Amino acid sequence: MLDCIIVGSGVAAISAALTLKANSKSFLIIGTKTLSEKISKAEEIHNYPAFLGVSGKAFAEILQNQLESEEITITEGRVNGVYSMKEKFAVTTQEGGMYESKTVILACGVETGKRIKGEQEFLGRGVSYCATCDGALYKNKTIAVICLAKKFEHEAKYLSELAGKTYLFPFYKGVDLSGGTIEKILKMPSEIVGGRRVNGIVYEQKGETTRLNVDGVFILKEGLPPESIAFGVETDGVSVKVDREMKTNLSGCFACGDITGRPYQYAKAVGEGNVAAHSVVEYLNEK
Amino acid sequence: MLDCIIVGSGVAAISAALTLKANSKSFLIIGTKTLSEKISKAEEIHNYPAFLGVSGKAFAEILQNQLESEEITITEGRVNGVYSMKEKFAVTTQEGGMYESKTVILACGVETGKRIKGEQEFLGRGVSYCATCDGALYKNKTIAVICLAKKFEHEAKYLSELAGKTYLFPFYKGVDLSGGTIEKILKMPSEIVGGRRVNGIVYEQKGETTRLNVDGVFILKEGLPPESIAFGVETDGVSVKVDREMKTNLSGCFACGDITGRPYQYAKAVGEGNVAAHSVVEYLNEK
Repeated sequence: MLDCIIVGSGVAAISAALTLKANSKSFLIIGTKTLSEKISKAEEIHNYPAFLGVSGKAFAEILQNQLESEEITITEGRVNGVYSMKEKFAVTTQEGGMYESKTVILACGVETGKRIKGEQEFLGRGVSYCATCDGALYKNKTIAVICLAKKFEHEAKYLSELAGKTYLFPFYKGVDLSGGTIEKILKMPSEIVGGRRVNGIVYEQKGETTRLNVDGVFILKEGLPPESIAFGVETDGVSVKVDREMKTNLSGCFACGDITGRPYQYAKAVGEGNVAAHSVVEYLNEK
Repeated sequence: MLDCIIVGSGVAAISAALTLKANSKSFLIIGTKTLSEKISKAEEIHNYPAFLGVSGKAFAEILQNQLESEEITITEGRVNGVYSMKEKFAVTTQEGGMYESKTVILACGVETGKRIKGEQEFLGRGVSYCATCDGALYKNKTIAVICLAKKFEHEAKYLSELAGKTYLFPFYKGVDLSGGTIEKILKMPSEIVGGRRVNGIVYEQKGETTRLNVDGVFILKEGLPPESIAFGVETDGVSVKVDREMKTNLSGCFACGDITGRPYQYAKAVGEGNVAAHSVVEYLNEK
């Protein structure tokens, strides 16, 4: 079994990976080969020690070179489940991957966008972050799809092809979806409502409140609420709670980088990745 | 008054400085222009993200270039006192410097060498880490000087010229001190003893215990016990206690890097320096 699975591929994840490698541990990094959008989109970086290249693009390139020279590869995937089991973890991806490891490092960043009222309350009861996981449940039904990035447009399309009616709330440039079951609404929803399950979504326009009846709400965004990924993990607002050793409340599960809270900075993420990896090594030694 | 004084010039200090600079805060870094011995002596660095140069020497050079391009200069000095006063700090150096600031970041590394039994107990009562500060108290008296690095040899020499008798315990290569009041002993002392004040030092040789009568003991080493630098700071063994925001128990005093404990790693130090600087910015904003 793998010593560790690192969830995410930003700088915290890379820092953790380099230190696990230096300690000869077996691990997977599950993320994207392009590392993270946040890295390559940074305009100027002045406060990361020993990096003089300034642009985020240059930073991403140097990290990719380093991974290559250390023979570390990234497994493409979007983790949607981390299950703490007796003495091990099961990790699943939206793509259908399933992995096992002795420890987990959560380094998947902080969720983007403000949470919508009701989003957390109805998670798993009509609110979903994963089109491929839960789409089939809404065949011919009425859904709302809140799509926060162009890269998730294909998931919105997939959902609209399954559903009987799709209210699409797109929040990105160059929306390229229409027709079929789709009705576009260019307002941010203010609330997801329901009883035992979701039954509606609410938005405001010119002082008027509109309520749409829906059976489910899909929120497609970068960075998910940590508790929707790692079941049972203790959070504080949008962050996972950790101690100085980067331990979460789940034994063998550590976290680092933006997911643990502010400041959202490369240097902080790198430091925490390093500490998390050392804590994994210590944890494995104690076992 | 300065916004901040950074005590030390290792990677944690540099990381803090870069972030204070990015936040337009006024500050001094007090340390050495060569940064830290620990950096330049590192043989191979593989787990610091975005640094591919491998050697510690290359790492130090790139950091120096970065400081230069950010117009950050290091003030030469060895801090021997950080005094928390109402709403400000006074910081003194062994060289006689005296500075004031609104906040302090302790980034002066972890003390080297195991502490000697009695070292902590008699600190300020016969045990001193500073030749220039306390040397004059021992004019014509009998002292022990434990010197842990070549760079402190001139301090040992200065003390031996003041004292009536000097037992020198040198622990470095190329000892170049003898004659005068000096008697060299090539064993590590096992205990510093005394009553209200130091009155002796003990060492073992070939199973035999020797006790020398001395009036004072100077320990010349890199990295001092934090409580001997920052008065009233809470410690845990050799480390300063900090929370996740790098706050110490003293309001306005933060710490980062090796001084806060393991792992003793560049990445960890850099991350903590970044967080400490952000906490300083937040603290100043709140004032």
